[in-house]
Amino acid sequence: MAQARATVETAAAESRRGGRVREILSWYGSDNPGTLTNLARLMNHGRLAGTGRFVILPVDQGFEHGPARSFAANPAGYDPRYHFELALAAGCNAYAAPLGFLEAGATEFAGDIPLILKLNNSDSLYSGGDPCPAITGSVDEALRLGCSAIGFTIYPASAQRNQMYGEIRELTEEAKRKGLVVVVWSYPRGSGISKDGETAIDVVAYAAQIACQLGAHIVKVKPPTAHIEQAAAKKVYEKERIPVGSLAERIRHVVQSAFGGRRIVIFSGGEAKETSAIFDEVRAIRDGGGFGSIIGRNSFQRPRAEAIDFLRQVMDIYAGTAK
Amino acid sequence: MAQARATVETAAAESRRGGRVREILSWYGSDNPGTLTNLARLMNHGRLAGTGRFVILPVDQGFEHGPARSFAANPAGYDPRYHFELALAAGCNAYAAPLGFLEAGATEFAGDIPLILKLNNSDSLYSGGDPCPAITGSVDEALRLGCSAIGFTIYPASAQRNQMYGEIRELTEEAKRKGLVVVVWSYPRGSGISKDGETAIDVVAYAAQIACQLGAHIVKVKPPTAHIEQAAAKKVYEKERIPVGSLAERIRHVVQSAFGGRRIVIFSGGEAKETSAIFDEVRAIRDGGGFGSIIGRNSFQRPRAEAIDFLRQVMDIYAGTAK
Amino acid sequence: MAQARATVETAAAESRRGGRVREILSWYGSDNPGTLTNLARLMNHGRLAGTGRFVILPVDQGFEHGPARSFAANPAGYDPRYHFELALAAGCNAYAAPLGFLEAGATEFAGDIPLILKLNNSDSLYSGGDPCPAITGSVDEALRLGCSAIGFTIYPASAQRNQMYGEIRELTEEAKRKGLVVVVWSYPRGSGISKDGETAIDVVAYAAQIACQLGAHIVKVKPPTAHIEQAAAKKVYEKERIPVGSLAERIRHVVQSAFGGRRIVIFSGGEAKETSAIFDEVRAIRDGGGFGSIIGRNSFQRPRAEAIDFLRQVMDIYAGTAK
Amino acid sequence: MAQARATVETAAAESRRGGRVREILSWYGSDNPGTLTNLARLMNHGRLAGTGRFVILPVDQGFEHGPARSFAANPAGYDPRYHFELALAAGCNAYAAPLGFLEAGATEFAGDIPLILKLNNSDSLYSGGDPCPAITGSVDEALRLGCSAIGFTIYPASAQRNQMYGEIRELTEEAKRKGLVVVVWSYPRGSGISKDGETAIDVVAYAAQIACQLGAHIVKVKPPTAHIEQAAAKKVYEKERIPVGSLAERIRHVVQSAFGGRRIVIFSGGEAKETSAIFDEVRAIRDGGGFGSIIGRNSFQRPRAEAIDFLRQVMDIYAGTAK
Amino acid sequence: MAQARATVETAAAESRRGGRVREILSWYGSDNPGTLTNLARLMNHGRLAGTGRFVILPVDQGFEHGPARSFAANPAGYDPRYHFELALAAGCNAYAAPLGFLEAGATEFAGDIPLILKLNNSDSLYSGGDPCPAITGSVDEALRLGCSAIGFTIYPASAQRNQMYGEIRELTEEAKRKGLVVVVWSYPRGSGISKDGETAIDVVAYAAQIACQLGAHIVKVKPPTAHIEQAAAKKVYEKERIPVGSLAERIRHVVQSAFGGRRIVIFSGGEAKETSAIFDEVRAIRDGGGFGSIIGRNSFQRPRAEAIDFLRQVMDIYAGTAK
Repeated sequence: MAQARATVETAAAESRRGGRVREILSWYGSDNPGTLTNLARLMNHGRLAGTGRFVILPVDQGFEHGPARSFAANPAGYDPRYHFELALAAGCNAYAAPLGFLEAGATEFAGDIPLILKLNNSDSLYSGGDPCPAITGSVDEALRLGCSAIGFTIYPASAQRNQMYGEIRELTEEAKRKGLVVVVWSYPRGSGISKDGETAIDVVAYAAQIACQLGAHIVKVKPPTAHIEQAAAKKVYEKERIPVGSLAERIRHVVQSAFGGRRIVIFSGGEAKETSAIFDEVRAIRDGGGFGSIIGRNSFQRPRAEAIDFLRQVMDIYAGTAK
Repeated sequence: MAQARATVETAAAESRRGGRVREILSWYGSDNPGTLTNLARLMNHGRLAGTGRFVILPVDQGFEHGPARSFAANPAGYDPRYHFELALAAGCNAYAAPLGFLEAGATEFAGDIPLILKLNNSDSLYSGGDPCPAITGSVDEALRLGCSAIGFTIYPASAQRNQMYGEIRELTEEAKRKGLVVVVWSYPRGSGISKDGETAIDVVAYAAQIACQLGAHIVKVKPPTAHIEQAAAKKVYEKERIPVGSLAERIRHVVQSAFGGRRIVIFSGGEAKETSAIFDEVRAIRDGGGFGSIIGRNSFQRPRAEAIDFLRQVMDIYAGTAK
Repeated sequence: MAQARATVETAAAESRRGGRVREILSWYGSDNPGTLTNLARLMNHGRLAGTGRFVILPVDQGFEHGPARSFAANPAGYDPRYHFELALAAGCNAYAAPLGFLEAGATEFAGDIPLILKLNNSDSLYSGGDPCPAITGSVDEALRLGCSAIGFTIYPASAQRNQMYGEIRELTEEAKRKGLVVVVWSYPRGSGISKDGETAIDVVAYAAQIACQLGAHIVKVKPPTAHIEQAAAKKVYEKERIPVGSLAERIRHVVQSAFGGRRIVIFSGGEAKETSAIFDEVRAIRDGGGFGSIIGRNSFQRPRAEAIDFLRQVMDIYAGTAK
Repeated sequence: MAQARATVETAAAESRRGGRVREILSWYGSDNPGTLTNLARLMNHGRLAGTGRFVILPVDQGFEHGPARSFAANPAGYDPRYHFELALAAGCNAYAAPLGFLEAGATEFAGDIPLILKLNNSDSLYSGGDPCPAITGSVDEALRLGCSAIGFTIYPASAQRNQMYGEIRELTEEAKRKGLVVVVWSYPRGSGISKDGETAIDVVAYAAQIACQLGAHIVKVKPPTAHIEQAAAKKVYEKERIPVGSLAERIRHVVQSAFGGRRIVIFSGGEAKETSAIFDEVRAIRDGGGFGSIIGRNSFQRPRAEAIDFLRQVMDIYAGTAK
Repeated sequence: MAQARATVETAAAESRRGGRVREILSWYGSDNPGTLTNLARLMNHGRLAGTGRFVILPVDQGFEHGPARSFAANPAGYDPRYHFELALAAGCNAYAAPLGFLEAGATEFAGDIPLILKLNNSDSLYSGGDPCPAITGSVDEALRLGCSAIGFTIYPASAQRNQMYGEIRELTEEAKRKGLVVVVWSYPRGSGISKDGETAIDVVAYAAQIACQLGAHIVKVKPPTAHIEQAAAKKVYEKERIPVGSLAERIRHVVQSAFGGRRIVIFSGGEAKETSAIFDEVRAIRDGGGFGSIIGRNSFQRPRAEAIDFLRQVMDIYAGTAK
């Protein structure tokens, strides 16, 4: 029997795709095999398959900013199928969108690319008070559409944060029972902090920690600046001499703040900017130990060929095949 | 077997009513056959059957504006049966109303015309604060009354929009599981925008997008004006030179904003106005690629014969048999 | 917009893996995208990925025949992990087993290969009366373990068939709602037919039809003999001169009986036999339009290297890269 | 950070109780931390704590055989508290009993010893037909009483086996979700086999396999004889020359049949017999790789001091501190 | 039988670990054996096992104060596994943390130390208005993770206190039905009292009473000062000459206020301060009849060896083996 076991173990080791994928899965010891299977799917798809790095295409701007601001620059993007195809052709790990956009292509692209259903969204037609998105989907809808994960946005620093934390808590429990992955967009915003504070290093690190404590498998935050927002935090950063001078150092600190590097943290591309600036940012994310990028406007607002070329260059940086 | 298959396919093609209906159904690939069946019913009924165009009679003004404001001009309309019969005689695709109005005729007119149960409504006896309708029906009530669809109003730009989005999310999930169509009235209104903004082209296009993202099969919006409400949008409309000069151009933009034309968008008739103005509006909707009109007060407040004549002329414009 | 659409369609066509996979998915138009996604997963994994052909490893013999009869010939198979690894190394489309066997490896092999949870099983310690398996799993367990499909055995011709049909009906409804695929093992057996009748061409074709009518996505039957069991059927086979002389002809007839070839029908390998006989059988299945094989004992009872070589040869026949 | 991680790992390794316990827990990768916690509790209690070996006291004979047959020999046992105390004083890993017996002492002995609630039981006042126990408890009752596990008896070879398999399937799903361990008593019995067959090596090995496939964490079977009951099995045992001559060899075969040794298998003491015969049996179980014993009548029917001495000697054999 | 009973009782008494544990359990006569079992587990683990005294490690500061303020002083603490191991190595009775931190180690440390799932938490990125934490876990999650208790914070004196009282009421009812212990952090805070009032002796005693009345099994409060906040209370303290001069006297009064000493009251360590000051405080808690300490920042922010030494000294004071 000992021999039989040895055979199993050797063979298993040989045939296993990506030791890094296995290593990352091992951090999620409380999750059932269904959730781990979907987490593996996200890591085993696209050009970065097996590397433990991520480039995800998110398209919720139609809901968040309106159609013209999102798609007029590249009108092909009005058609929901465009984004499935773009994510697939570029070799992204996954495509994330609200209910309507996924419904409009999920059958046509069934099985082609892992999907993430965004379960809450804010529109820009009303902007009074502290932000709180509307619930726009459900875990059962994610199963119906063949998704691997649910996505959810929290706004720490909003007066309505508890509402959001309570919602994601409930959705997380259900998603984990049903074998799905939970991706949390953690964007501090609201009357608790200043505008600059939204990307302050202390605030972004804190936002990552909150998402992890709420049970997220994957956390998305913004690349942090060197600004420190909170006085109580400032004292600690100075006393402990936490290095936050370069972006790579700040990324490293955010990753550390996400359970000592044992949760997947990815970074948003933010507003459209020059391509070379994005590549610099991606290099810093990579060098700081970040797990990848989620890039919306900077990809789908470019013409298709340019977008694919752009996304592949980003992937090459993460894969280590480009500087 | 190849031959058998060919036979099946040819025969199916021959007997299919309206290739356009099939084409439209193909946009809804995530829906079950029950929902597609009801969507087909809406498209295969009345004078516009098979064209993919719609003229729907909605009568919720009794609830929304009160009985005298709604029915005194044509007192026959106090009787709920009047509207079933009007919609039927005029050859509308469907008749939409709140629970009470449908209950009062659903048996008598069973099978005569597709019905849409409006599941939320606002009355005018209280008007404080930002608008939010009351839930006045359910998906199970829609089944009980033999409806093909549920209808629901959202008010983007209201401080209470999240309440409405959350309600329609839940109703949509249930309606789709039970094989019904979801029609969303998307009317921006509330403290987020100005009065003019309610029909601004950027706002109406955005409202259509929101309804689609929430999972609506059919979206109803108001004909947009050339006004642009939001500064961030204005920049894009100007930079991208989106044509919004004529109503037809604006309709085209709204239709494009509804998933690149892959969702059914229909337009309200709005307030009572001169007949010729309505016909002009309908021609512009048709020329801009709109899918039809939903016309309440402009039809049921006229004497019956005049209303029928009026509705048929609208249909003739959509059918292309009138200019 | 027309141009944008064209772009989408061309690009999608280009990047789509396996036109045959899309064609097969198109037969399941009533299923939601979740189920189609899992069906695509089964077709896009392993050495036959993209061909629409299947070789599945099933290991329920431990439950059905007992451990020694199943695993003593190749004792490595006592360890549940052995079979995950064997299916993976050989390049099978999927691995199917009862609850316990899947639980014992699902985390370790999470994401490595599509799984099918067998939801009912019979043991051989009691054999009185007509056969009826016990329910040994659930749809929620399949989600928990990250499975793509449920598997279920029916015994048409058993006095207890209605019990099984009722169970699979209920499980099928739930599985389809939750985005899983339904695989039905349809094995006529019981007092309704003779021993020879279990593999009679009329009976096997009938068994395939019953499974399809019950809503199965994938049907597994035994390779049929030329025997015709039922008198009423015999008349028709003779009158219509249905060709059943060769195995390929009989396979063709069974596939036709499964909704004119629009359901996936795969064939069991049956009892261990000579390798060349199996290859002949596989060639006949391929030539008759069968979709593949599900091969248990003939693979896992051989030494690992031999089993992998054997399974790959079977796959080569299906792939058309071997005669 | 690398240093911090190293510190954690070293320290964790140092402080971890019982590498063998961790090794066994690693076999149950699909279970949640709650179930693993309770499985660890069973392994970390009593004189065998940390060894991965078990001696469990079960007292369901009051229900199964009646009070006089069970307790008259040692009347202290009429009192339910006697058995809690006996299990505790002797240093057993756990105490197992039906609802009533646990209710009568669970508060008094709360926290003193892990408890197993037997969820089904048969009485001897009716004995017609093939055996099938009654459900006599629930998973929620197990939580209410502070139990670490549920226990359940199946009778493979009974005409009513499917009833039992279906029940344990449902209970297992619930118990695992709520963090409890599942112990299955697998006792082949009924019209499917002969009386000798109940302890035949092929049948006992098969019974262990069935329990594992049904999802049991711990399986209890009877020590097997060298008899082989089923003709089909006999051929295999002879052909493969499976060694079943000594009890230790047979135990080894049963353990192998329980997922290649990756499930905990314990053995019943069976009918009261001479003490030296029991010790011989325990030595063989130990030498064959069995995980322990569950000893009822042979312990609680002796006077307390003698029983404690007896149980401790059994434990010493398992601990390797006695021959 | 009388003799048998006597035997049972004597033997039980002999073998019972810790008469003090039994005495404390006897105060909770309305609780089911499941809850008592978990309460006993808390009292029977670690270096204070059996004494009825507690030292608990709580680590919710990552959520409450942010990662840098919590872990930068001792970066090993960014890794969630560090705290499990620290609590275990130091010999704490239990480890308490929010969902994410427990999920990240619960499988690896399954069965090693009793866990408390904190079910609500506040972050510091928003601080407007009266405090009210977000719900961040559930009773079912506590079962899934193998916890012995739930933890919950109430803020008496907050305008939102009723929200919290309502939440804990519901969670308490569920936790008690499912056999878990309820630990309430009772921290008066908000517009109802002054800053000094938060630790005023009358307020702390009142906070303990409220938690007991809400059904808490274990109450955590802050060490009280001699300040008396409320005028109405002041009159009584003066009239009845309640001794509140020394900390030990105040602790005694708080313990008395928690149902005459029949509920477990433990005290927070508060902000980091000098070690000798903490030991003084602990001695006063011990002398005043307090049941123990819950010490977060003062332990996990020190280097590991120092923290273990520190915690053991605290335990020695409670155990009476140190002055």
